[in-house]
Amino acid sequence: MQIALLGGSGDIGEGIGLRIARDTSHDVVIGSRRREKAEDAAASYRNTLAPNADDSRIVGASNETAASEGDFVIVCVPPRYVLDTVQAVRSDLKDDTVVVSPCVRMSRNETGFHYQSSEVGSVAEEISDVLPDQVPVVGAFQNLAAGALTDLDRDLDLDVVVTGDDDESKQKVTALLEGIEGLGTCDAGALANSREVESLTPLLINLSMNNSDLHDLGVKFR
Amino acid sequence: MQIALLGGSGDIGEGIGLRIARDTSHDVVIGSRRREKAEDAAASYRNTLAPNADDSRIVGASNETAASEGDFVIVCVPPRYVLDTVQAVRSDLKDDTVVVSPCVRMSRNETGFHYQSSEVGSVAEEISDVLPDQVPVVGAFQNLAAGALTDLDRDLDLDVVVTGDDDESKQKVTALLEGIEGLGTCDAGALANSREVESLTPLLINLSMNNSDLHDLGVKFR
Repeated sequence: MQIALLGGSGDIGEGIGLRIARDTSHDVVIGSRRREKAEDAAASYRNTLAPNADDSRIVGASNETAASEGDFVIVCVPPRYVLDTVQAVRSDLKDDTVVVSPCVRMSRNETGFHYQSSEVGSVAEEISDVLPDQVPVVGAFQNLAAGALTDLDRDLDLDVVVTGDDDESKQKVTALLEGIEGLGTCDAGALANSREVESLTPLLINLSMNNSDLHDLGVKFR
Repeated sequence: MQIALLGGSGDIGEGIGLRIARDTSHDVVIGSRRREKAEDAAASYRNTLAPNADDSRIVGASNETAASEGDFVIVCVPPRYVLDTVQAVRSDLKDDTVVVSPCVRMSRNETGFHYQSSEVGSVAEEISDVLPDQVPVVGAFQNLAAGALTDLDRDLDLDVVVTGDDDESKQKVTALLEGIEGLGTCDAGALANSREVESLTPLLINLSMNNSDLHDLGVKFR
């Protein structure tokens, strides 16, 4: 299958793209507003995984092209650009595409990072609101640190929480996640439960900031 | 030391009281609005730990008496009674007492449990606001399920997040927590960072509700 990463030249896109390309048989399409930037990022990721090899499973494209090819479209852009990006590509999505939100909106003040919910609730729900009703949105990946994903020597042994209103899409995303080495999955129910998933991310950052032995941390539920 | 559990006849108080009494050398004072109820709970907990033994390390008292004796005062009452309870005992607190908040305010709707923050932010900060400035408040225990704590056969192997503005009190609470078998601790910084800790609790409940193999779950950070 094709995994499109909108804004995939950023650090979370890099981490997700590298892990999917390394651990699964899926193809990865890195999207960016500028195609050249996406192609450069894709070349760099290919080089990270297999220097000098001819691995064409990671390619670059405009966000629109990436969105039009993805069986999964993972929205890896910074929170402030998420809705504009999704709106720009919504008419390009294939039938049966699953849109995945790893997004979290946070603020920072003198004590640390804090979750910012909106009137709608979570970013995952906001994405769903700007998409046609028939496009399923699944929340996932929010609690994985880019630094952990991009460090390919690091054993993850972490859980990813999945939320969504369409069981079939959740199962597809769960299967995708479980193809990545070291990731387990837990179902937190409806998309409306994404807020509590997203708000775990600033806690993880605050813990990293206050514990010298914890970097780029994630969670295991038990 | 004396560990006072206000509202300690409830399930989270039972769990914390049993674990502290079993695993540490501290004395536990169960508080309740009605002294008789607290004494009955204390007798029941003593019986759980050592049937027919004469262990006087768990006793019952009014919340006021418990608060006046506690080196740690852990506020185990339901969220809607927290502020009234703390206000009722604030003049009884010893010098050097550390007040600990395991409290979380949640609502439930058709999709699951949701975190309710207040204008102040977290319940931990609300407790601090109704106490004199010199009384340190530490957030802890929020992400432990009563069902896991009261099941004394269960190996916890879980982390507890600690927040607070006074480093010495945080260290004291950390030492108390690390005396309980299977608990690790992580510092999330200032008391103002408690909101993100408290909001992890409804996520844990939503995960329990949606995964048949996960009950009374907690977290490990890694």
